[in-house]
Amino acid sequence: MEKDGINSFGAYLELITNRNPVVHQITNFVTANDCANAVLAMGGRTVMADYIEEVEEITGAADSLVLNLGVPSEERLQSLLLAGKAANKKRIPVVFDPVGCGASSFRRNAAKKLLHEVEVSVIRGNSSEIQCLFDKYNRMRGIDAETKFDSICTVRKFAEKTHAVVVVTGERDIVTDGDKMYMIENGCKEMSLLTGTGCICSALTGLFLGADTKAVYSAVCAAACVGIAGELSWKRYGECGLGHFHMGLFDMLGNMRKEIFEAEARIHEI
Amino acid sequence: MEKDGINSFGAYLELITNRNPVVHQITNFVTANDCANAVLAMGGRTVMADYIEEVEEITGAADSLVLNLGVPSEERLQSLLLAGKAANKKRIPVVFDPVGCGASSFRRNAAKKLLHEVEVSVIRGNSSEIQCLFDKYNRMRGIDAETKFDSICTVRKFAEKTHAVVVVTGERDIVTDGDKMYMIENGCKEMSLLTGTGCICSALTGLFLGADTKAVYSAVCAAACVGIAGELSWKRYGECGLGHFHMGLFDMLGNMRKEIFEAEARIHEI
Amino acid sequence: MEKDGINSFGAYLELITNRNPVVHQITNFVTANDCANAVLAMGGRTVMADYIEEVEEITGAADSLVLNLGVPSEERLQSLLLAGKAANKKRIPVVFDPVGCGASSFRRNAAKKLLHEVEVSVIRGNSSEIQCLFDKYNRMRGIDAETKFDSICTVRKFAEKTHAVVVVTGERDIVTDGDKMYMIENGCKEMSLLTGTGCICSALTGLFLGADTKAVYSAVCAAACVGIAGELSWKRYGECGLGHFHMGLFDMLGNMRKEIFEAEARIHEI
Repeated sequence: MEKDGINSFGAYLELITNRNPVVHQITNFVTANDCANAVLAMGGRTVMADYIEEVEEITGAADSLVLNLGVPSEERLQSLLLAGKAANKKRIPVVFDPVGCGASSFRRNAAKKLLHEVEVSVIRGNSSEIQCLFDKYNRMRGIDAETKFDSICTVRKFAEKTHAVVVVTGERDIVTDGDKMYMIENGCKEMSLLTGTGCICSALTGLFLGADTKAVYSAVCAAACVGIAGELSWKRYGECGLGHFHMGLFDMLGNMRKEIFEAEARIHEI
Repeated sequence: MEKDGINSFGAYLELITNRNPVVHQITNFVTANDCANAVLAMGGRTVMADYIEEVEEITGAADSLVLNLGVPSEERLQSLLLAGKAANKKRIPVVFDPVGCGASSFRRNAAKKLLHEVEVSVIRGNSSEIQCLFDKYNRMRGIDAETKFDSICTVRKFAEKTHAVVVVTGERDIVTDGDKMYMIENGCKEMSLLTGTGCICSALTGLFLGADTKAVYSAVCAAACVGIAGELSWKRYGECGLGHFHMGLFDMLGNMRKEIFEAEARIHEI
Repeated sequence: MEKDGINSFGAYLELITNRNPVVHQITNFVTANDCANAVLAMGGRTVMADYIEEVEEITGAADSLVLNLGVPSEERLQSLLLAGKAANKKRIPVVFDPVGCGASSFRRNAAKKLLHEVEVSVIRGNSSEIQCLFDKYNRMRGIDAETKFDSICTVRKFAEKTHAVVVVTGERDIVTDGDKMYMIENGCKEMSLLTGTGCICSALTGLFLGADTKAVYSAVCAAACVGIAGELSWKRYGECGLGHFHMGLFDMLGNMRKEIFEAEARIHEI
């Protein structure tokens, strides 16, 4: 699949349908229902479990793991770490979503610890979350914390250093593995009026990874799918309002097909 | 009501409207909002509380109790046990939903412990959850764990042994109290694309129980209501997509009336 | 703004759009998604965090704090208290929603403790919650607990004693700061068929407070907005059912504008 690269993005959707991957999500209660429904809508299965005594076993039986830092606690952090290490041992790919990681020193330290102890395949956040993570990561390694996060180059540098694919979602999404870099121009600004679109993007990245899609392509596909679903839902339901828009997002995720994806995706290698 | 049996299923709906039962749900955060709204939609009231210090008091004031094993923890298990025992003491009916009980040894042991310490009126799960519970239950009693869960007879045997009504939901739902056995043919396969339809079925079983409906009829009515709502929602909104389908489920639950129930229910005594 | 008073309610909506306040919500998992989406829909931002180690820092960076007693625990109570005190220290306004505070002695004591240790700007509940709080509060101060909660006068008395704005939502909403008293006649009885409309009202009260609206006007605006949204959604979608009604609530909150507010609000000073 790897050699097909950018031209095969649509085909990755079919991998999911064929393989029905199980995504273990350790996530926050605010957006959990949406994250579960998004994975199901696109053809995966999901299990949500966060208790220390069971996370390793559940991760071990999953095809991918999504670690979400929303509404954290010390106990939740221990679960994230245990599950992450179990995934690493079994070579199960891991997505890390540093939700609101700039909001408190507890979250900053938790994120740092997680990046230090768990090898993650993909890190996805908005620009302020990734900026915060980048600063913390650099400080952790004694690098000048003042490095500005003002350019695509910095994202690439962060990917190189962490050996992870880094995704910065926003008006335009940036995805890089430190080598290749993609820009996704799907989505619409109204998506920021719904809670959880970022968490959904991370969950779907886990879904593509679970279907054995290469990390950088998983991240691109997930960002494009969420963006396309948002765009199409807003186009169709925006004038009704945000309730319709929210509902429509799941209509569009469930109806996503190769043809729609290929017609709508605006993915550029840059 | 008992003597009317199968011909009165529609009438049980009216019991709910008349009695407005309060269902105490100890449930997981993924589907809690849907479970609460489903109970309200069909005319009940609900309270969700899971803290050890208050569950007994809250159960004691409720008309039924639903114990859901989703996203468990040791502390949550203690709450399930305490509430269950409080319900038993006051003869408040209990529904047990062993969510994902095959997913970890923690859940298997938790489910076993719960079945051992709490007398439950109804156990509801999908076939793999009930299979897992059945194996664990048998092993617990030194019975050959290899008994195959390959037939309706096994479900009946499990009901006999546990003195509970056992419900296996799936393409067709099976409900038995060890004596009578019903098959419900409502529902549609797309319901598996929404998280929480099983949890909702357990919640609604609690609702019927809370209105003093006999356990086996409560389970039949709840399974039929969820199935009918799913079917009607998919028929009406399926072509729009899964977001509409999810929303429509609550439309249909809220609009469920004796007449609709009786026209749509496909319940067979077998 | 204060001097404009009742004639400026519509203008407070624009304050939110201009100031984009951040509301820190410590809330229950049942309605968290709706509470977050309601705040975003009306132009605010929100952060949900409940871990002891981070709540003070997160409150400190917010424009208002909403303390919701739903699905409580001892640990959650400690977070509510810590965040509340941090807010008091920094003069960040606090809303308290004593969800189900009559349901257990744990909740009654938690509510009492919170009112004792935290200075709150607004207390919002339904009549049984406020009644319970009032009794507990009086008992705490050695006042005759038998004072009947049978009149608007009692609500006023409670506001005077707590130095908080007290809001009793129901068929008609009552808002008073002990001096002025308002009745809001928006909303419809079907809102009680959806879980979370009360929590949403508290969240939106926090949103108005965060935009520097005076407490009594914040409470009036929030109650009116939720009521108007409910009314308009029911008018438009009620015949479809409760799923549509739920969705429509967010359509209407997102579409709320000064003109709609002023045309629809039925606010009386009494």
